[in-house]
Amino acid sequence: MKFLVLPLFFLLATITTTASRSSFPNPIHLLQSESSSKDYNVANATLDCLSWRLAVETNNLRNWEVIPDECQVYVGQYMLGHQYASDCKYVAGLAYDYAKGVELVGDGKDAWIFDLDDTTLSNAPYYYVDNSYWAKAYNSTEFVEWELKGEAPAVPGILDLYNKLLELEFKIVFITGKDETTLRNITEYNLKNVGFHTWEKLLLRDSTEASLTKVEYKSKKRALVVADGYRIWGNMGDQWSDLLGENPGNRTFKAPMPMFYLK
Amino acid sequence: MKFLVLPLFFLLATITTTASRSSFPNPIHLLQSESSSKDYNVANATLDCLSWRLAVETNNLRNWEVIPDECQVYVGQYMLGHQYASDCKYVAGLAYDYAKGVELVGDGKDAWIFDLDDTTLSNAPYYYVDNSYWAKAYNSTEFVEWELKGEAPAVPGILDLYNKLLELEFKIVFITGKDETTLRNITEYNLKNVGFHTWEKLLLRDSTEASLTKVEYKSKKRALVVADGYRIWGNMGDQWSDLLGENPGNRTFKAPMPMFYLK
Repeated sequence: MKFLVLPLFFLLATITTTASRSSFPNPIHLLQSESSSKDYNVANATLDCLSWRLAVETNNLRNWEVIPDECQVYVGQYMLGHQYASDCKYVAGLAYDYAKGVELVGDGKDAWIFDLDDTTLSNAPYYYVDNSYWAKAYNSTEFVEWELKGEAPAVPGILDLYNKLLELEFKIVFITGKDETTLRNITEYNLKNVGFHTWEKLLLRDSTEASLTKVEYKSKKRALVVADGYRIWGNMGDQWSDLLGENPGNRTFKAPMPMFYLK
Repeated sequence: MKFLVLPLFFLLATITTTASRSSFPNPIHLLQSESSSKDYNVANATLDCLSWRLAVETNNLRNWEVIPDECQVYVGQYMLGHQYASDCKYVAGLAYDYAKGVELVGDGKDAWIFDLDDTTLSNAPYYYVDNSYWAKAYNSTEFVEWELKGEAPAVPGILDLYNKLLELEFKIVFITGKDETTLRNITEYNLKNVGFHTWEKLLLRDSTEASLTKVEYKSKKRALVVADGYRIWGNMGDQWSDLLGENPGNRTFKAPMPMFYLK
């Protein structure tokens, strides 16, 4: 009998999901049936999208440009459904578990580093096109237009972690590849608007750093933080290039992100 | 109409799977419905086992001892079903894609390193108890009894990768934490018996290395390989401790393994 119950669950879940899908205003917080992203993988015979995503998240697959055709709908459903939010919140919880155990020196130099894009501020809405399509390639002009709106929501779970780290008296250091000249003001506005009301440093990329790879750039900025006397207790980013290189931090946390790869 | 087709698929898949489940002799190659491991997560309200597994694989969750109670059945289904095999084969494919692009020097010093346990030889049968239970803690006495049987099957996809690397003329170096004195002979037997018929080096842990952490031990062995003039082009392991430390290799590959954590 129990083998009849599951298909009925899927049937009901699918109908419920379908009814709510088109009317929900904010794609990143849309709650869908847990089964939805999996379903889209079942129909795919040429590439296992779950294996693809695991390879992305573990840094086994590198230097990819866009989500493979076969996995575009799968990744969209992953981002739209509850799994992406669950994965983010779980990593945030692990980071807090670690942070609670750190014995801070308390001299104002106990730092925690966050990347911004898709670690702190979500660009999922930028990749959300025509109500279902997520796989467009990065376009710098369009992306800057999106950034200049200052409308990025917080990544799920991250604001809670941020507030808890502040309570523990960590000094928050944001390091981002966003452009210093054109994006500082709107970035500060966006951060504050969604609840990130204070920070020790907000480091953006200046014109002399334009040619650095992301690993080089992030390492350079972290070296400045260390040279300024800070201890980097934690470092969270959605790309491995946030977490590799020099001075990665005492503990790194990889936030989930299957939509793009940055070297 | 298409929303009715998927539940029917699940119904048929579930019935087919159930019929074959109890009679299959080798748990690691049992083919189950893709939905099975997911289903076990749906019923779990306290911990999202998909998020837990992702955190394990990305090294966000460290130093855990056993699979959490809530995820024991989930992990069992993951290992028994096709997803573990698919994940292994996909990583093996990525490793081959990389290996094909390496310009070997051809002086006999182009090395590829594999960990043994659960990278090359699978211990999944050891963790398979009472036809369904996978979460027992590591017990060194029992585990040695299992190792001394020499019955570990190859990890899915790895024998194919191994053969292709040999064709490309990589020199295969196995590095394992297994004990040199008591386990060399049976390990060589087991490797050859499942198809790993040749290697450049098979490095086991000797009595002077018993107190090293796994990262220290693996780094020490890799340093010996490098000191011997080899270039480590690739390094594959199921634990992050296989891939961190000194001389990790030009490219590392993390094989999936949610059953245990080794520092």
